[in-house]
Amino acid sequence: MNVKVIFKTIGKLLLVEAIMLCLPLIVALIYHEYNYILPFVIPIAILLILGLILSNIIKDNSRMYAKEGFAVVGLSWIFMSLFGALPFTISGIIPNYIDALFETVSGFTTTGSSIISNIDTWYDSAKSLLFWRSFTHWIGGMGVLVFVIAILPKDEGHNIHIIKAEATGPKVGKLVSKVKITARILYLIYFSLTILLFILLLFDPKMSPFDSMIHAFGTAGTGGFGIRSESVGYYSVYSQVIISIFMLIFGVNFNLYYLILIGNFKQVFKNEEFKWYISIVIISTLVIGIDIFLDTSLTYSSIALALKDSFFQVSSIMTTTGFAVADFAKWSTFSKMLLLTLMFIGGCAGSTGGGLKVSRIVILLKSAKRELKKIVHPRSVSNIKMDNATVDESVVKGVNNYFVIIMLIFIISIIIVSLDPNILDLSTVISSVAACLNNIGPGLSDMIGPFGNYGDFSWFSKLTLIITMLIGRLEIYPILLIFNIKNWLKR
Amino acid sequence: MNVKVIFKTIGKLLLVEAIMLCLPLIVALIYHEYNYILPFVIPIAILLILGLILSNIIKDNSRMYAKEGFAVVGLSWIFMSLFGALPFTISGIIPNYIDALFETVSGFTTTGSSIISNIDTWYDSAKSLLFWRSFTHWIGGMGVLVFVIAILPKDEGHNIHIIKAEATGPKVGKLVSKVKITARILYLIYFSLTILLFILLLFDPKMSPFDSMIHAFGTAGTGGFGIRSESVGYYSVYSQVIISIFMLIFGVNFNLYYLILIGNFKQVFKNEEFKWYISIVIISTLVIGIDIFLDTSLTYSSIALALKDSFFQVSSIMTTTGFAVADFAKWSTFSKMLLLTLMFIGGCAGSTGGGLKVSRIVILLKSAKRELKKIVHPRSVSNIKMDNATVDESVVKGVNNYFVIIMLIFIISIIIVSLDPNILDLSTVISSVAACLNNIGPGLSDMIGPFGNYGDFSWFSKLTLIITMLIGRLEIYPILLIFNIKNWLKR
Repeated sequence: MNVKVIFKTIGKLLLVEAIMLCLPLIVALIYHEYNYILPFVIPIAILLILGLILSNIIKDNSRMYAKEGFAVVGLSWIFMSLFGALPFTISGIIPNYIDALFETVSGFTTTGSSIISNIDTWYDSAKSLLFWRSFTHWIGGMGVLVFVIAILPKDEGHNIHIIKAEATGPKVGKLVSKVKITARILYLIYFSLTILLFILLLFDPKMSPFDSMIHAFGTAGTGGFGIRSESVGYYSVYSQVIISIFMLIFGVNFNLYYLILIGNFKQVFKNEEFKWYISIVIISTLVIGIDIFLDTSLTYSSIALALKDSFFQVSSIMTTTGFAVADFAKWSTFSKMLLLTLMFIGGCAGSTGGGLKVSRIVILLKSAKRELKKIVHPRSVSNIKMDNATVDESVVKGVNNYFVIIMLIFIISIIIVSLDPNILDLSTVISSVAACLNNIGPGLSDMIGPFGNYGDFSWFSKLTLIITMLIGRLEIYPILLIFNIKNWLKR
Repeated sequence: MNVKVIFKTIGKLLLVEAIMLCLPLIVALIYHEYNYILPFVIPIAILLILGLILSNIIKDNSRMYAKEGFAVVGLSWIFMSLFGALPFTISGIIPNYIDALFETVSGFTTTGSSIISNIDTWYDSAKSLLFWRSFTHWIGGMGVLVFVIAILPKDEGHNIHIIKAEATGPKVGKLVSKVKITARILYLIYFSLTILLFILLLFDPKMSPFDSMIHAFGTAGTGGFGIRSESVGYYSVYSQVIISIFMLIFGVNFNLYYLILIGNFKQVFKNEEFKWYISIVIISTLVIGIDIFLDTSLTYSSIALALKDSFFQVSSIMTTTGFAVADFAKWSTFSKMLLLTLMFIGGCAGSTGGGLKVSRIVILLKSAKRELKKIVHPRSVSNIKMDNATVDESVVKGVNNYFVIIMLIFIISIIIVSLDPNILDLSTVISSVAACLNNIGPGLSDMIGPFGNYGDFSWFSKLTLIITMLIGRLEIYPILLIFNIKNWLKR
């Protein structure tokens, strides 16, 4: 592996992070939180020095290959989190560095799992830190979009995302400039949608500009850090519905917005993944809505209210955002099992959402169906189709293997977390790992539900969940690559 | 589908069941349980009449194809269970027919999940019915061995079992006679091992010949129905160790015993699946043994005792038998998660054990590892090897799809069972489905643990679990085929 070129690139990214940390610094100045100025200035200084050293001293302009690309992605998420956690610890608001790291990785991976138990206190006196915390979601979401476009290899099951991008993106000769243009278009869409959401939320009298911005960040990155102990339940029904819809919007493959921009609406509505995505949301919303309405322990006065909450939570969990308007940890086992299933399905490929992704699920189902047919007709040969085009067999194979690896990581993580002496019930263990691996945030038990937090986990469990969040967000490989020492020794 | 030839074959099997029901009838006479004579005579009469009609009146000697073979397997398990449940209901000992069916399907599928809460009463006054209940395990185990050899198609992932049989079995010209000879050899091994176990158990002063026979049946079929409220914990440590070892023996690919018979020990110890199987058992035994020894809530006085219990339970769960010497529902979440993982791994292919099978797990892991390598070197081509031979890609694909389908059925079943108003905790829901789908028996919560039972589930959950047991035992396809009406309409 070419270590030089990797660290040169990381250096540049640290400089970007230094610039980004200036925003919460400005927020601290606006809200007169002078005690939080130094906690931002120190990391900025460190990042500037380290970034300048790495990006200028190292002289190496050799090409990056897939391996180096993966290493850069994995390391940049790790380094940005390591430094991004500093403001929390330096300020003393999260004294334990592991806790601060957990919160920051949860931010950058757009997970939204939190260890904070006194969020209302933060809202009163630490707005700059709240801003930084949610801003990491927005940065993370942006990072994922580039990662998916630029780094993932083009001919494996990993990149079912890009099939569409390849087919519909601007045709430019060189790959590099093509990636750059695609990335710019995606950023423009991401930015515009965030601003639109921000403006729409301002109409809610309970939403200050600060609150609107925070929720726009959390929704755009499908992150889900809340700033009120009631999460989005604190705000008006109007805001709840707007956020429900925008979570769904950010869970859609961004290439579809490009299609809309160029006026090709027909292809949007023909898109198979999109149809599955919407169908799953509608069916789940109805089933869970009826279930919670009939549940006498929940006292929903009308079916409309039940459906509103159901729609919000389905949208929030399926897009792996994690905002809450109701304590779904108290819902029936049936509704919770449906939510757990949605956690694994996740958003569409090429969105900021996590999980396995709808298109992978569709390919898995089609592949399974074909296999069952083949048992009776062993000689039959048929291709799997998506959007009327044949899916390459290597993609089908890749998706199948991806599923196996995710399940394997799921099981291993559960076994490790189950060693935690502070966590005794199976549903906390299972749903914490599911929520972190799929980058959702809250789990399905009281302890880690939408109104609970991850503070009571042991440091060892927290580290495990940190790695799980990274693996889920970066689709396994970049993280495994970094932990494989053999790769670092080879040149 | 050729319905005639299917029902002609089913007819013959019903005659076999009539003969088999004569054994518990004899037991009833020996133990002077005269009130249980009629409950056996009635089903025998029905089976004889129906069997003779189906097998004689239908005139059709056309060939059976894969589809018909699958339908026969699926239907024979269902019909034999439907009639096999009659003695329990007619005698009034299990008044509810759904309960009786649950118990019988659990028997024939070698699962061992029970709805009986007063097993000690049965032991005192219903030995003939206890005999029939455990005898179904032994019949089921025998059925599975034939199914694996004769029915499963030869060129798909389904039949990784037979790779070995093909390579090492007797070379005979015609397929039919080859299958017949192979089946005879397997039966001989199955029969001899059962008798050996029966004799060894007789040395335990607490084991009457009746008890020895029951436990030999339950062990050979990897079923696990107990006849004491303490299960195998009632008997001496000697019996516990003997049964631990024999459960392991029945979880091994039977082709290995054929190799031993012809004196080819070398190939036995080279067998990769066998090595994985033994390694998993040893490591799990040590880890769980240490965990339960250190667990202060369990009061193990010595590490030897802890290891003895751990070995027994690992062997029992991994081979999907389900006997118990300790209440593992009370063990730590960590140990329970390990057991849950073992449930899915299951025994070796070509054994009487259930679960995914060790060889499938090995192929899944090798395929996942290859995929990870391929991300960096997209052009690399490498084959997956087992026992130094290349595994065909269609087999790898089949195994991957099998895993996806099993997970899908697992999730759907969990969602259905979670609708049960009598079952409130997630660990009961999840572990009941895992225990039935993988044909283990007891789950991991107090309610359905080794000293609990499935009696409190709703009839709807019981039906779901019945189907789950059948799907798990018959490796999905025969059951799905039967429920697919379209297949019945085609000729």
